[in-house]
Amino acid sequence: MYLARIHVRFKPGVLDPQGTAIKGALNQLGFKGVKDVRAGKLIEITLEAEDREAADRAVREMCEKLLANPVIEDFTFEIAEENL
Amino acid sequence: MYLARIHVRFKPGVLDPQGTAIKGALNQLGFKGVKDVRAGKLIEITLEAEDREAADRAVREMCEKLLANPVIEDFTFEIAEENL
Repeated sequence: MYLARIHVRFKPGVLDPQGTAIKGALNQLGFKGVKDVRAGKLIEITLEAEDREAADRAVREMCEKLLANPVIEDFTFEIAEENL
Repeated sequence: MYLARIHVRFKPGVLDPQGTAIKGALNQLGFKGVKDVRAGKLIEITLEAEDREAADRAVREMCEKLLANPVIEDFTFEIAEENL
């Protein structure tokens, strides 16, 4: 069993309204040192696969087909073996 | 300058409709090995702080005051020094 931790972020240059809103709110709460805020998605998938390479291929395909919009989003992921 | 990577997840037992929807869609796309999907938030904050401990305190406070709803969400974070 494998656990994939996927990060989906907006591509550089794409407007990030949520990040901008969080930054404004943090400033209003008195957090003065905040220079930049980027908001994205965290997706954690527990999956069965023959081996590590098969899990890697499957997760990459899941990201390309469903989890990340290739026009405006980038994705990265890490895979760890789970002893469930 | 520090970069904080924050993960906000639903607490165990809290319904995760987005995770459930993603799991269903992955199954429909033919990904058969998927056992569980959890969707959460990724927030990356670039901030100035006196030192590592001050950055840690500030980020923890940001999470407790704004970024995570203490009733239904948990948060974890990592802080790395950034050479910008």
